[in-house]
Amino acid sequence: MIQSRRNFLKTAAIATIGTGLAVSNPVKLFSQNKKTSPGSGKMKLSFKPFDLQLRHVFTVAANSRTFTPLVLVEIEYDGVIGYGEASMPPYIGETQESVMAFLKKVDIGQFSSPFLLDDILTYIDNITANNSAAKASIDIALHDLVGKLMGQPWYKIWGYNPAKAPSTTYTIGIDTADVVRKKTEEVNGLYNILKVKLGRDNDKEMIETIRKVTDVPILADANQGWKDKHLALEMAYWLKERGVVMIEQPFTKTDMENTAWLTERSPLPIYADEAFQRLNDVSKFKGVFTGVNIKLQKCTGMREARKILDTARALNMGVMIGCMVESGCAVTAAAHLSPMMDFADLDGPLLSANDPFKGITYEKGMIVIPDKPGIGVEKIK
Amino acid sequence: MIQSRRNFLKTAAIATIGTGLAVSNPVKLFSQNKKTSPGSGKMKLSFKPFDLQLRHVFTVAANSRTFTPLVLVEIEYDGVIGYGEASMPPYIGETQESVMAFLKKVDIGQFSSPFLLDDILTYIDNITANNSAAKASIDIALHDLVGKLMGQPWYKIWGYNPAKAPSTTYTIGIDTADVVRKKTEEVNGLYNILKVKLGRDNDKEMIETIRKVTDVPILADANQGWKDKHLALEMAYWLKERGVVMIEQPFTKTDMENTAWLTERSPLPIYADEAFQRLNDVSKFKGVFTGVNIKLQKCTGMREARKILDTARALNMGVMIGCMVESGCAVTAAAHLSPMMDFADLDGPLLSANDPFKGITYEKGMIVIPDKPGIGVEKIK
Repeated sequence: MIQSRRNFLKTAAIATIGTGLAVSNPVKLFSQNKKTSPGSGKMKLSFKPFDLQLRHVFTVAANSRTFTPLVLVEIEYDGVIGYGEASMPPYIGETQESVMAFLKKVDIGQFSSPFLLDDILTYIDNITANNSAAKASIDIALHDLVGKLMGQPWYKIWGYNPAKAPSTTYTIGIDTADVVRKKTEEVNGLYNILKVKLGRDNDKEMIETIRKVTDVPILADANQGWKDKHLALEMAYWLKERGVVMIEQPFTKTDMENTAWLTERSPLPIYADEAFQRLNDVSKFKGVFTGVNIKLQKCTGMREARKILDTARALNMGVMIGCMVESGCAVTAAAHLSPMMDFADLDGPLLSANDPFKGITYEKGMIVIPDKPGIGVEKIK
Repeated sequence: MIQSRRNFLKTAAIATIGTGLAVSNPVKLFSQNKKTSPGSGKMKLSFKPFDLQLRHVFTVAANSRTFTPLVLVEIEYDGVIGYGEASMPPYIGETQESVMAFLKKVDIGQFSSPFLLDDILTYIDNITANNSAAKASIDIALHDLVGKLMGQPWYKIWGYNPAKAPSTTYTIGIDTADVVRKKTEEVNGLYNILKVKLGRDNDKEMIETIRKVTDVPILADANQGWKDKHLALEMAYWLKERGVVMIEQPFTKTDMENTAWLTERSPLPIYADEAFQRLNDVSKFKGVFTGVNIKLQKCTGMREARKILDTARALNMGVMIGCMVESGCAVTAAAHLSPMMDFADLDGPLLSANDPFKGITYEKGMIVIPDKPGIGVEKIK
């Protein structure tokens, strides 16, 4: 008995080698024998590829496309199905094949209950270093499942007020002045805030064209397209005078120096998008960006997104929830966080032509989170 | 119509004055008219003072006492009662009177549903600048209530694995060698880790006396009692050789300089206790302390405690959950977070003689979180 305690102590001592600054976990004295609440069944994971067709050809600084490849995920437990989704626009470096290869590695049946979110999602995250969209698809399906098992929507489980869900931005892609004017006229009066993709050589023309149609506030998303910090600062003042309220990702994603310089001087808040991926990035960006654009597909899902929200607020940083071109599944999942956000760019379902899910809706441009258990989506295709 | 949008834009523009670093909330475009889910009743708050008698006279570096004043809180909604508690050891600067004066100011009936945790607790926090124990009593009662309405314990709502609840430390107060030896013998074999109060002139004697009885790991809580950084570093090495695994609050709570110096060099992790209060402190302590001791009564309750946990982890800092001398109510609330902690000092119910609640239990020194809705306590007095 004394011997076994001594052996334990030795182990504990070895585990604490290193300085006081290193976070060790020396005396996590828990039993290997305690049982978790037994589940009444096993979780089953299934998935399939799906091409989400776009209503308009979509152009950002880097490329154009007509559809976005998705992988749709289901996790079934006790006859209840949770829905999830991975979305893979070309620039994130995942494909339907890479996502499905990841999902094939997942042994979800080893867990006794979907309520063990922390254990399960830690396991999922440790399978590979990247594959954040694939990881997000599992996270979303599990949240949908657990919310359904609790009989509650996630905004309610999280204690957020759904009446505080903000207006969504609606995105106007880069195009000729004529097309931009036509697109803006099409949505005029429907949305309270627009997001405009800048970062080519016609930034001022884009803004001026939109301003001929509407004076709603604008988020300017430079998509890493700007090069010169002095021109960027000048542009920030020019944009502010024209009712732009925020600038997203002005410089290339690795350029912290110019970004910090601009953020310190800019009359508009500067948000990280391409530069920002996961929770560990938040503290690195304090003083570099004003805020971060959280996307479930980048940060591995709802659980980490909530942690990013809380950490960013603790660091007095701004937060925005965004989306890829996604179906109603992943966008509705993101919508549950929207009441806590400074900006919400959740227009995904407005941009697609064959959405297999019904969930998030919009009322006078404002996000309406469905008041149904889980993420609250209905499969309609 | 155009005019009203223009007016809006003007307002939005005014709201964004300042640099990009300032977090403004310029276009939180949500309606004032959207309805929240209607509640089926009103919440009612009640409270009463209670003196929690101690089994032993309790001595720390600063004082001795025989009981701890509490205020017990109930929030009733739809026939369901949530229990909460404020605990006021003398050093936190609150009394039963100050807590009850705070609670009299609370108009909980204005909220349509206890699920609006974020709105309600933001309102509570804004009533005064301090009164964290009073705020925690409301937070705990609301969590108990909401968990009961969802039919789930909070560890499950949060997605934590209860089988990972760690061993609790058991605290040995400062006393003569004879008394310390007697106390240690009394609990020998019952606990897997002890917490020893140091910070007077008999630190080495305390440790040596305990080591004559047991070799379980020890947390050394200096309670701000050390003065000299070189002696502290020497002591850290001496303690490590004797199976101490962590040092809590070595210097006075405002002394960041000596603490950072020690943390950088110490072979043991250095945790903040008296120095650490709330979420906003976490990032200030990165590089100063290895980790933080989270106590519900200091940080206003379970909601902020969870945010502290996530923020500290995001900053790669250690986390510990502690308690004041409290009844089973507040300690059980804290226990729901324990599976995510590096250390847990949740021995409150072991130290009291007239606990009005049954909740947390201990199995071979390990924390057992009750598997019941809410915080899972039962009122027994």
